[in-house]
Amino acid sequence: MHVDRLWTNAQLVTLRADLPALGVIENATIASKDGRIVYAGTQAEQPLIKATETIDCEGRWITPGLIDCHTHLVHAGNRSREFELRLEGATYEEIARAGGGIVSTMTATREATLEELVASALPRLDAMLAEGVTTIEIKSGYGLSLYDEMKMLLAAAELGRQRSVSVAATFLGAHALPPEYAGNPEGYIDAVCSEMIPAVAAAGLASAVDAFCEGIGFTPGQVERVLAAARDHGLQVKLHAEQLSNLGGAALAAKFGALSADHLEHLDEAGVAAMAAAGSVAVLLPGAFYFTREDRKPPVGMLRTHGVPMAIATDCNPGTSPLTSPLLAMNMAATFFRLTVDECIAGMTREAARALGRLHEVGTLEPGKICDLAIWSIERPAELVYRIGFNPLYMRIREGER
Amino acid sequence: MHVDRLWTNAQLVTLRADLPALGVIENATIASKDGRIVYAGTQAEQPLIKATETIDCEGRWITPGLIDCHTHLVHAGNRSREFELRLEGATYEEIARAGGGIVSTMTATREATLEELVASALPRLDAMLAEGVTTIEIKSGYGLSLYDEMKMLLAAAELGRQRSVSVAATFLGAHALPPEYAGNPEGYIDAVCSEMIPAVAAAGLASAVDAFCEGIGFTPGQVERVLAAARDHGLQVKLHAEQLSNLGGAALAAKFGALSADHLEHLDEAGVAAMAAAGSVAVLLPGAFYFTREDRKPPVGMLRTHGVPMAIATDCNPGTSPLTSPLLAMNMAATFFRLTVDECIAGMTREAARALGRLHEVGTLEPGKICDLAIWSIERPAELVYRIGFNPLYMRIREGER
Ligand SMILES: [Zn+2]
Ligand SMILES: [Zn+2]
Repeated sequence: MHVDRLWTNAQLVTLRADLPALGVIENATIASKDGRIVYAGTQAEQPLIKATETIDCEGRWITPGLIDCHTHLVHAGNRSREFELRLEGATYEEIARAGGGIVSTMTATREATLEELVASALPRLDAMLAEGVTTIEIKSGYGLSLYDEMKMLLAAAELGRQRSVSVAATFLGAHALPPEYAGNPEGYIDAVCSEMIPAVAAAGLASAVDAFCEGIGFTPGQVERVLAAARDHGLQVKLHAEQLSNLGGAALAAKFGALSADHLEHLDEAGVAAMAAAGSVAVLLPGAFYFTREDRKPPVGMLRTHGVPMAIATDCNPGTSPLTSPLLAMNMAATFFRLTVDECIAGMTREAARALGRLHEVGTLEPGKICDLAIWSIERPAELVYRIGFNPLYMRIREGER
Repeated sequence: MHVDRLWTNAQLVTLRADLPALGVIENATIASKDGRIVYAGTQAEQPLIKATETIDCEGRWITPGLIDCHTHLVHAGNRSREFELRLEGATYEEIARAGGGIVSTMTATREATLEELVASALPRLDAMLAEGVTTIEIKSGYGLSLYDEMKMLLAAAELGRQRSVSVAATFLGAHALPPEYAGNPEGYIDAVCSEMIPAVAAAGLASAVDAFCEGIGFTPGQVERVLAAARDHGLQVKLHAEQLSNLGGAALAAKFGALSADHLEHLDEAGVAAMAAAGSVAVLLPGAFYFTREDRKPPVGMLRTHGVPMAIATDCNPGTSPLTSPLLAMNMAATFFRLTVDECIAGMTREAARALGRLHEVGTLEPGKICDLAIWSIERPAELVYRIGFNPLYMRIREGER
């Protein structure tokens, strides 16, 4: 077999479903051709391979490239002043007067050009790539008008052109109520369903639609209209659900065969069962839990009992999770939510791929999948979760290329 | 005035005591000669300066180089397996049987050569330097024999030779009871006081002595003997105090004019008052609070009321705080302990210098001090505290050199 690249002397975290736990294969090699994995197994069982380039990993560990399946990476403005005011004891009103809150991000995002949105997101994206991210989901949701939501989605696509990373764009028009529709949420949902979703789908600018189902977001009835419109236009659905209260959002999303329901601190057993039946992934966001100082934790035990897959993501956003470290998200999922090391690593690879509907392409180390790798200078996979604020990445490989 | 280097177009966070809050000076310049600051002030008031090299900061912010005033950076072994077992619900006994706990770090540290200790600490040190650290405290305390404690202190000194960073070494012989002295803590304290401290002092290998005053560490009576021996040998004192219970350690340390008492979750008002009277710094360690999932927080309000200076450190150690990010320590101090942005930034610069007895040399941007700088690509100082897992360092300057 002739291949482009062969990595030898490696320990693989394959995440293969037919192997136990992380699917570790020691003393292994992995080979790529035309950007796809063509072999990933033991050195001993490897077929005869002639490689254009051979890389000696010197015993290092290889995982699938990390996948951050829930981010609001594209946004303008700077919410550090709001953070500072909160620490000084400012009230909600004082912060609003000082121009804080999601409206400030919307205003700044609307004022920004496409180029400015891309430029401001690049340092955040680069921080992610430096930790081995090869696929990233990016949501719109700070434009809240057809033009500005399209601008955000175009910025997400442009990030995927300026860096070697796969971008999954999600339309989150139903993130907050824009001031033009104050007092008229149904009118805004009309616009989301009848103007924005059709335009986004026609332009091919997003593969999924998301919404914020919450007292301070949209009602289950409004969300249902959004998810139905998404389905009607051939888009997959996801949902911000049960973060601050239990409105039955996860079960609603499951009804639409949602890829995932995300946050889930207030999820109940009926919601868990509905997710399990629909095959939806529970996306846990410990960065937001930490930053907003939540008490209530997602029902990890129930999710395990019902066999709901769990993914972990940064939720990178300026208001509730200014987090750009997937490794730290794993550490926080272990520390706060008591996920095991195996659950954390699977949650940033295989289950994150599942939450994006991309498990057939990425998320495990198996022949046929895209050759997206993270190579780590560690002694054991647990180190990826155990350390706090330390990055042991040795090399990132995207589609077989450094 | 002729200088070696002149940084122009900068915003300074001087931390000068005669200026309010962070001592910000906008539209400023800073100049160095022979590794010292010779000017730090407004561009408008700057005297005529001829510089060998001029660097345009393009509006960036400059703080003093960061100071991590409490670390156990030098150690061998890998406690990620213990972390993994804990998440799987292992009991204390199971972890001990699997070779976990501080004894495992002691064993690995004793088995390691000086060169191995240095090599294993370098990646952790480099992570710190990448975030702008220019001074770092490093404790012994995993050798627990004269030979192995000296080896650790020599490794700390060697780190300061292999990297451009100022190392403050602290002797922490009274960290844990070594197995040779099982059942005989007084015998071990005898050795610490009559053999180890004299030898460390004579060799000039440490500037301070620390101890672990705790039920699982040493009693106040034993600690008092250690601090007295330190004083008798001209060494300054610090103390791990009131982390898990209130034994009056901070007040005891204050009696010896301690530079600092560290952790302090269980500190009471008498302890706070004693620290205030002695001028001891309260070193807060939010990484350990986070990793060990403590509920109880240090009495920040009382520390403020009594005017006790607060520093923040990583406590980088393999058992309870595998944290190598001073920026994240600041974010956690704000998030968990509600320190303000100004307190966080002062806590990693001026107050950390004070906790090491080095405020006359570092910790603020003032003429006469060592020119240790961190230059940041940020719009406002609050960003250093607000972001999670993001490093905006533009350039680190140590003794006036890049
Ligand atoms: Zn979100
Ligand atoms: Zn410590």
